[in-house]
Amino acid sequence: MRTQDQPSVGRALPAVIVAIVIALAAPAPTLQDPLPSWNDGPVKRSIVAFVAAATTPGDPGFIPPAERVAVFDNDGTLWTEQPMYVQSAFIRDRLRALALQHPELLENPAVRSALGDEGGNRGGGGNGGGDGESSRSEPSAELLSALADAHAGWTVEQFERAVLDWLATARHPRFHRPYTDLVYQPMLELLRYLEENGFQTWIVSGGGADFMRPWVDSVYGIPRERVVGSTVVVQYELRDTVPVLVRTPRIEFVDDAEGKPVGIHRAIGRRPAAAAGNSDGDRQMLEYTAGGTRARLMLLVHHDDCEREYCYDRESAVGRLDTALDEARARGWTIVSMKRDWKVIYPFERGSAGRHPGGRRR
Amino acid sequence: MRTQDQPSVGRALPAVIVAIVIALAAPAPTLQDPLPSWNDGPVKRSIVAFVAAATTPGDPGFIPPAERVAVFDNDGTLWTEQPMYVQSAFIRDRLRALALQHPELLENPAVRSALGDEGGNRGGGGNGGGDGESSRSEPSAELLSALADAHAGWTVEQFERAVLDWLATARHPRFHRPYTDLVYQPMLELLRYLEENGFQTWIVSGGGADFMRPWVDSVYGIPRERVVGSTVVVQYELRDTVPVLVRTPRIEFVDDAEGKPVGIHRAIGRRPAAAAGNSDGDRQMLEYTAGGTRARLMLLVHHDDCEREYCYDRESAVGRLDTALDEARARGWTIVSMKRDWKVIYPFERGSAGRHPGGRRR
Repeated sequence: MRTQDQPSVGRALPAVIVAIVIALAAPAPTLQDPLPSWNDGPVKRSIVAFVAAATTPGDPGFIPPAERVAVFDNDGTLWTEQPMYVQSAFIRDRLRALALQHPELLENPAVRSALGDEGGNRGGGGNGGGDGESSRSEPSAELLSALADAHAGWTVEQFERAVLDWLATARHPRFHRPYTDLVYQPMLELLRYLEENGFQTWIVSGGGADFMRPWVDSVYGIPRERVVGSTVVVQYELRDTVPVLVRTPRIEFVDDAEGKPVGIHRAIGRRPAAAAGNSDGDRQMLEYTAGGTRARLMLLVHHDDCEREYCYDRESAVGRLDTALDEARARGWTIVSMKRDWKVIYPFERGSAGRHPGGRRR
Repeated sequence: MRTQDQPSVGRALPAVIVAIVIALAAPAPTLQDPLPSWNDGPVKRSIVAFVAAATTPGDPGFIPPAERVAVFDNDGTLWTEQPMYVQSAFIRDRLRALALQHPELLENPAVRSALGDEGGNRGGGGNGGGDGESSRSEPSAELLSALADAHAGWTVEQFERAVLDWLATARHPRFHRPYTDLVYQPMLELLRYLEENGFQTWIVSGGGADFMRPWVDSVYGIPRERVVGSTVVVQYELRDTVPVLVRTPRIEFVDDAEGKPVGIHRAIGRRPAAAAGNSDGDRQMLEYTAGGTRARLMLLVHHDDCEREYCYDRESAVGRLDTALDEARARGWTIVSMKRDWKVIYPFERGSAGRHPGGRRR
């Protein structure tokens, strides 16, 4: 690899031309820096030191390759979760569409609440919350259950198609971009950096596994089988002699809080060497990782950038960060300040052609 | 790669020396044959044709790399399951050891039945079956539940240690070898062959995920996270401030029959391109694979070799193969005759130093 200090091509060219070419060129990516969107500082240095030790045989921080498992929360850790979880927006929009076809859905108070004013049901239900209400809350158990009901009987392929169709047209209310544009460039770099150093990266999210799997490969470069998430019970059926898997309305597993270490054990069967989260729902996953005996990295993303993204922690209904922040401080986990540690938040801020590092396959 | 027809090194040497060297050399591994332990015939040819097409862009049988998922049953498909499932032998031996320390366990009829005559409880319980009974049956729900009870409160690490300790000393009653010696050499070759052609190999077994994960990497070369199996509910707990996962006595998921496609969806999130099984418990997994729209391979191992292994199908309590055999014949799935299609059954029959192909990492 070449650096700007040793432009071998320049030896055959007049120095002035070289200087002009360099000056006109877009800022060259610093090949030596695996985390170019991270500002220099203690956080970046602790990440790099962890990885350097993990990959240096003989170092006390060395981690055998098979044990290099890194788990990432999704909402608020890899992409923006404000002003409402993306999956909540999907649920709201799905319900809205379904309610047009099946007005009886509006008899469910949770559905009316989720649709709020925009649902065309203003004044129709005493229990219906306004937009503010519905966009503040995370999906309630009733709402999830309403959606599960609405999608009961769908094959997993039909559900996947609905997710992809929605993502193709839905836009974030503030940034007016597809939700999949609102992923964090520094975290994409961290995923690639860990993978290049032999780590297996996984998503461990409270969101639905079937909601995430269709797009994690193209958006994060993480293959769909490396997704641990909440699930509904699915059933094996023959439909016109074709064997299919059909969604039922029953919640099978909630991959949040205490559920995250459980989901990790179920899917991976190993205690992770690195974990990244941003909310109290990630506390147990971070604790579980911290409880290992080898070197490990616990990363907590703190949303403290009101201008470029959102600032919220202890009081937020979406992605509340309270006890996990205290624990991170008490135990010396690595707390990422989005404001201080990240040069850019989103890939599109870089203004380059490539939106972000492409999907890298195992 | 060189072939014997074009020994380029030979051009510089007298032909007679070349002939002597070739004659004296140990039989060279046939570099062209990825499945040396498989006899030539329609079964081997159908496997090779499937893989060749799957990896040839433009071929109607081409499968994009991300979709090359191959799932393998374990008991009776990758290793010997007679005269009793290996996990049943583990359960019996564990119960025997536990009953010495906790005689109250013998109050459970399922435990007495499992221990049978050898349990030191002869005549002690009207419900206790003899050895023949206990070694014929698959683990009953009561027995599994008794073992789950016995291990309730254990951390997943403690359970893993018990599995490895047991495997290190337990011996198969007929072959007098560790159970992990009794894996099928032709299937190990098939695993490696598929992996070398970009397939991701998974184990999808009715056995316990926690029972298999500790050793699948060293024995099959399949990393522990690519195991789908039956599970008990585990709970997240802090023990002396250390976060651990603790086994409960509750069965969470039975990865058998209809459960196999469900387990595949939960863990992999994709319909497989290839599946191998040997019993009615694999029927739905094979059907589900067959229901795909791309090229796919359905393999059924038929235990018809009474001399080298065991012969059993429709009448067997362990690994019964009845409806799946009919379906395989009706639909033209690939039926492997162990007697006709396999040159050797076990790695040790080859008599070489290396027991079997080593664990290959992703």
